Amino acid sequence: MTKVRPISGFPEWLPRERIVEQHFLDVIRETFELHGFASIQTRAVEPIERLSSQGADTDKEIYAISRLAAGADEPTRDARLGLHFDLTVPFARYVLENAGQLTFPFRRYQIQPVWRGERPQEGRYREFTQCDIDIVDVGQLAPHYEAELPLVIADAFSKLPIGPFRIQVNNRKIPEGFYLGIGLTDIKTMLQIVDKLDKIGPQRVDDLMVAAGATAEQSKAALALAEITTPDESFVDRVNALGVRHETLTQGLAELAAVMRVGAEHASGLMVADLKVARGLDYYTGTVYETQLIGSESYGSICSGGRYDALASDGRTTYPGVGISIGLSRLLAKIMPTLSVSRSTPSCVLVALAAETDRTQGMAVAAALRERGIPCEVAPAADKFGKQIKFAERRGIPFVWFPASADEESDSVKDIRSGAQSVSDASSWMPPADDLRPRVTA
Amino acid sequence: MTKVRPISGFPEWLPRERIVEQHFLDVIRETFELHGFASIQTRAVEPIERLSSQGADTDKEIYAISRLAAGADEPTRDARLGLHFDLTVPFARYVLENAGQLTFPFRRYQIQPVWRGERPQEGRYREFTQCDIDIVDVGQLAPHYEAELPLVIADAFSKLPIGPFRIQVNNRKIPEGFYLGIGLTDIKTMLQIVDKLDKIGPQRVDDLMVAAGATAEQSKAALALAEITTPDESFVDRVNALGVRHETLTQGLAELAAVMRVGAEHASGLMVADLKVARGLDYYTGTVYETQLIGSESYGSICSGGRYDALASDGRTTYPGVGISIGLSRLLAKIMPTLSVSRSTPSCVLVALAAETDRTQGMAVAAALRERGIPCEVAPAADKFGKQIKFAERRGIPFVWFPASADEESDSVKDIRSGAQSVSDASSWMPPADDLRPRVTA
Repeated sequence: MTKVRPISGFPEWLPRERIVEQHFLDVIRETFELHGFASIQTRAVEPIERLSSQGADTDKEIYAISRLAAGADEPTRDARLGLHFDLTVPFARYVLENAGQLTFPFRRYQIQPVWRGERPQEGRYREFTQCDIDIVDVGQLAPHYEAELPLVIADAFSKLPIGPFRIQVNNRKIPEGFYLGIGLTDIKTMLQIVDKLDKIGPQRVDDLMVAAGATAEQSKAALALAEITTPDESFVDRVNALGVRHETLTQGLAELAAVMRVGAEHASGLMVADLKVARGLDYYTGTVYETQLIGSESYGSICSGGRYDALASDGRTTYPGVGISIGLSRLLAKIMPTLSVSRSTPSCVLVALAAETDRTQGMAVAAALRERGIPCEVAPAADKFGKQIKFAERRGIPFVWFPASADEESDSVKDIRSGAQSVSDASSWMPPADDLRPRVTA
Repeated sequence: MTKVRPISGFPEWLPRERIVEQHFLDVIRETFELHGFASIQTRAVEPIERLSSQGADTDKEIYAISRLAAGADEPTRDARLGLHFDLTVPFARYVLENAGQLTFPFRRYQIQPVWRGERPQEGRYREFTQCDIDIVDVGQLAPHYEAELPLVIADAFSKLPIGPFRIQVNNRKIPEGFYLGIGLTDIKTMLQIVDKLDKIGPQRVDDLMVAAGATAEQSKAALALAEITTPDESFVDRVNALGVRHETLTQGLAELAAVMRVGAEHASGLMVADLKVARGLDYYTGTVYETQLIGSESYGSICSGGRYDALASDGRTTYPGVGISIGLSRLLAKIMPTLSVSRSTPSCVLVALAAETDRTQGMAVAAALRERGIPCEVAPAADKFGKQIKFAERRGIPFVWFPASADEESDSVKDIRSGAQSVSDASSWMPPADDLRPRVTA
């Protein structure tokens, strides 16, 4: 038998940590639904051909799946399948497949694991959970959605104990137009180089741009653009001061200014225009987003996305979209050590047993508590009460319930943290609201 | 590009159906937590060696995964990995791996997709969701847990619109002891044959048993045992009337009687003793469960499990457990056509816009509604009100909100089902409780 051990890149949480993850998932889902996003889930697999044509030149390595019992001819009978590496490519396929049964603009959220065969490192896993929202429409997508999505994220994050964060917004048309305006033509390569600015610094970016064919002057100008970041619309003046003119640049500036204006109105201080943000994925065509935890900037983005105009197309109809994705596993990996949780089980009450023959009575008490939404369990065995209380203590269960014995008139319940014990009735007793569910705090 | 099409065995739901699935998931999770089960999730992959040694001789075909970009030497460097085919084998591994950090008896639930490379057919998929609860302890597991688990399932199912159901319980020690008592020794083969009784009928079972080495008399006795099913403990007398005696049989009868006694006390009429239930998986050692939808018996079990004494063992310590698993995808595939849902989006309110310049005002209304837990969205465009109302109608959104225009004193809200419109204030208006969330009904 294989030795039992973790597999690098496939992390798992302990029950206590999973409660934190569930809290995050609940808040994120609740927020997405309050903003009118409908849930979908897609199968874990897509044809490899689709995955590799849309993941483009990224480092997202695809996992192929194959049946152990498959005959040699199977891969030719069936298109070969791989595990999805994001939720955007499957969503685009889902939209094409079900367009006739969806109502557009279609707002959807999707929370699922994804898989990438990358080298595991801090905050980068081979299996991890993403929480995506996207809005797609038919033919045209209104630009106000590009302003709306980061507000939804800001709403979710403001309800979570993650500390201060900063949503960085850019528009790909700005560097594209700017590069064209200074005579650079290999936009894709230049974007990929500038995207590394935070990681490798301006000197290395300069070197790489020149090596890729830029003149010293072009590289200097591109870096000057990338270094612009403003909390408001003032980036427009700063870009214009660089003296470059191009129609695409003008359009990008106007679009980003509109997004920043809405951000300032509805999520003041949470968004910045950051002109170095480019995103690795090919399919973005306009607004792009990244998100930093303030104080952990070098950790990289914990929530990213952008507008894609051509991802979902069947050749006749195109469904442009905009989306943003919380990298939940990545976020939790960073902040889990800063969080605490009040217990490692949902149980708020342990029903104690004086004797094994009281189990039926104990189960009736538990049923009465559950009836009113109080999570509880009956003691594993009719051990000495001290041992039963220890069992509750070890798991952080705050209350122990003592059903009335033959010579007692009523049940009692003990708060084992304070030791306070009081007469109680399973059909009416309620714990303090704060104790009903495990509490997650920073 | 691959043509966009469904992949056989990998079903997906439309948004409306996904709301039904979410409702089921919510009720199941809530019930599991009320009963004190803590959530865990395990990675999607396990070493293939572990999967194939514990899936035994079943027809569960394993999907291997491999990195497309992997060098030829990779499978030898890393143990080869496969997608899990159930949640019990990964859970047993998780318990062994984390035993030092868990508190026993450990009650956990786990809701995740699993993958099996079987031939897809009605209610049988290659990717499907299971909802498992298990209780494991160290060394010994108290038998009362075998009685408790089906009660948790009965509690969950009684809150779901699935119609009448029947939890069938057996104990493997009964057929084992009985077979030994009549001189049959290849227990495993005989159990596998009897397990097919519902599918192939008694005549074929008889044929197969005889072909596998049973005498006509042994086969007849085994069939007589398998045909016993009672709503109470009376199965004990009926088995004893068959005149077979064996220590293992006696033990199995006592254990099943105890489970049935608790079932009668706490979930009257929902459980039956059914002595033909065997389960395909090798690792069960005592109580086994299956669940039928009454009226759809031939569809097979939608919730199954059992006790396993040796699955989780590191050679020194053994963690016996008992578990039961709702086959959610399988259950939903059967009953989805019988269910309806009040809308296809979480949004309860559409905030209408008289002009695009009112979007900021509309977003403020939406924020005020969300503040008090009312899911809503702002209209996609400031079309004619009739068109905006149609947009809400098509998605089943019950209310359209009209922010006050310059010459109006207050906002108003229209119930577009009745046409009733009334003055309203976003800081205090509440929809009827029934309209707040999409409603799922039979």
